[in-house]
Amino acid sequence: MIQAKGYAAQSPTEDLAPWDFERREVGPHDVQIEILYCGVCHSDLHQIKNDWFPGVFPMVPGHEIVGRIVKVGDHVKNFKVDELAGVGCMVDSCQECENCKNDLEQYCLEGNTQTYNNLDRSGVPTYGGYSNNVVVREEFVLHVSDKLDLAATAPLLCAGITTYSPLRHWKVGKGHKLAILGLGGLGHMGVKWGVAFGADVTVLSTSPSKEAAAKELGAHHFVVTSDPAQLEAVKGSFDFILDTVSAPHDMNMYLSLLKTNGTHICVGVPPKPMEVAAFALLGGRKSVAGSGIGGIKETQEMLDFAAEHNIVSDIELINIKDISTAYERMLRGDVRYRFVIDNATL
Amino acid sequence: MIQAKGYAAQSPTEDLAPWDFERREVGPHDVQIEILYCGVCHSDLHQIKNDWFPGVFPMVPGHEIVGRIVKVGDHVKNFKVDELAGVGCMVDSCQECENCKNDLEQYCLEGNTQTYNNLDRSGVPTYGGYSNNVVVREEFVLHVSDKLDLAATAPLLCAGITTYSPLRHWKVGKGHKLAILGLGGLGHMGVKWGVAFGADVTVLSTSPSKEAAAKELGAHHFVVTSDPAQLEAVKGSFDFILDTVSAPHDMNMYLSLLKTNGTHICVGVPPKPMEVAAFALLGGRKSVAGSGIGGIKETQEMLDFAAEHNIVSDIELINIKDISTAYERMLRGDVRYRFVIDNATL
Repeated sequence: MIQAKGYAAQSPTEDLAPWDFERREVGPHDVQIEILYCGVCHSDLHQIKNDWFPGVFPMVPGHEIVGRIVKVGDHVKNFKVDELAGVGCMVDSCQECENCKNDLEQYCLEGNTQTYNNLDRSGVPTYGGYSNNVVVREEFVLHVSDKLDLAATAPLLCAGITTYSPLRHWKVGKGHKLAILGLGGLGHMGVKWGVAFGADVTVLSTSPSKEAAAKELGAHHFVVTSDPAQLEAVKGSFDFILDTVSAPHDMNMYLSLLKTNGTHICVGVPPKPMEVAAFALLGGRKSVAGSGIGGIKETQEMLDFAAEHNIVSDIELINIKDISTAYERMLRGDVRYRFVIDNATL
Repeated sequence: MIQAKGYAAQSPTEDLAPWDFERREVGPHDVQIEILYCGVCHSDLHQIKNDWFPGVFPMVPGHEIVGRIVKVGDHVKNFKVDELAGVGCMVDSCQECENCKNDLEQYCLEGNTQTYNNLDRSGVPTYGGYSNNVVVREEFVLHVSDKLDLAATAPLLCAGITTYSPLRHWKVGKGHKLAILGLGGLGHMGVKWGVAFGADVTVLSTSPSKEAAAKELGAHHFVVTSDPAQLEAVKGSFDFILDTVSAPHDMNMYLSLLKTNGTHICVGVPPKPMEVAAFALLGGRKSVAGSGIGGIKETQEMLDFAAEHNIVSDIELINIKDISTAYERMLRGDVRYRFVIDNATL
């Protein structure tokens, strides 16, 4: 076994603290990565706190992993020692179902294996990137460019692909009016992709104070949703709303901002079901859709696109000892736009 | 003015009763139709009872109108006296907005003028098809084939187009598994269209007793949704669910029956907002969409398709004096599948 050290929550009521554990040996198809940086996703905290479902404890969170390959199995074809690599939200899937065969491992019909807070296909708990190393089968390892700031690349593995994938799936681009709802880790990436894809991008926010930041990210317009006059001015105007908000919010109000045939795409997970009025959909053949991360092939495409267009996340690098403070600030929305752990501080 | 007689509700608390009223004179672009049959839509009752919004009273319901043209205005180009004609849910729209120009008058950005329970563009109340005649601008009059049973054609003007339009919009056909939720006036038409378009059609129903009827309509499969084993067997199996149910129902259960990328299309209007869990959408890039009737061009296309394929509604012809009994039976679901008024009984 490979010795690993990380930060773990021993239970939903305990703070993260140092914890030593073991990873499996590098199998013939495995890649071992020394983790250099790991993004801090809001879902890390949701999972530690059992907000969505009962977790597997001890839990080492982290699914926005970048690092350097230190060992590869004998049959690994596409990766070499010393290369940069990334790991996102998944580390395995059945590889045989219709969805896996269509490069949609995130929707694996047997269920994919999540990078942490899950049991792998042999029943062993998975541990994430708040740690010094990880062993992953090569099909779930991504190539990471050395042209980009490495720490700022980490959040692409979740926040990046989660926003990239739906915009690609729904072919959002030139001629489309795209609204981004929520300007956090996901939302700020949505702005960057939307602008890069040629859409006319509007940030919808309750906070007038975010306007300058939104424009700096490239957004063309900014609408304060608590101002009825500003809202009225954009009624029926958007082709797409990319909804990154995990707090409860008034879906029917947002649906009224869509054009006929418009699509409201949810990538955040509010704690309670959303209340959707039938008339809000029927009145303009509108849709509420959801999208979860992206497949491995598309994640690689996203990383390549990012390298080509010099797109990374805006981040604040932290010492892992400050993770609890980072969580507190994240809950207050006090981060532009993603905390990334410097794993050298482990 | 033209004298008209019909059945009207004088208020939300009164039963329908005979009422004499006036229609506008036939203008240069108008068509006057002697109404022969009018379908009874569940929405007639919703509107009389102010279930959705405060109505315009007295209210003469009815928006599934077929009859014979008795007069045309001097500038009418496409209709002649003695021809059969139909009128559906709309009798006017702005004709100038983006949606009207794209043959989506049902989503007219100024709002279309509903056939009844509405004020027309000069502020005069509109009165529907529970009456002996109607005057409509020619752009909102449909050609009706004499090859089809005329009474059974009436419900195509609402129930027919409401189910035809979304199946066409989402290109439902060969290779698709389509579920029809609810086997009433709308649902039974959904089955007929789905089968005609080449889809593999399943009726989802709480009533095992409806199986034979569903199969008679052409459905390939029947699933009793109150039977967990039957439900489990169709999990993740449908490309589309056409949801015709206006009563509250568990959206997340139905979303679990959709394949990855599946779409749940609502054409019914439950009284309260639907509760949709984000995970139910994100877990397979699923959508909940809505669709409202169809544009005039598409309604004509639907009527022509019906004539070509010999598709009409299954109906029970009634004397208008029995309308209250018909409403009671409709509320119990005791109708196969649409009541149609014989307007000769007025």
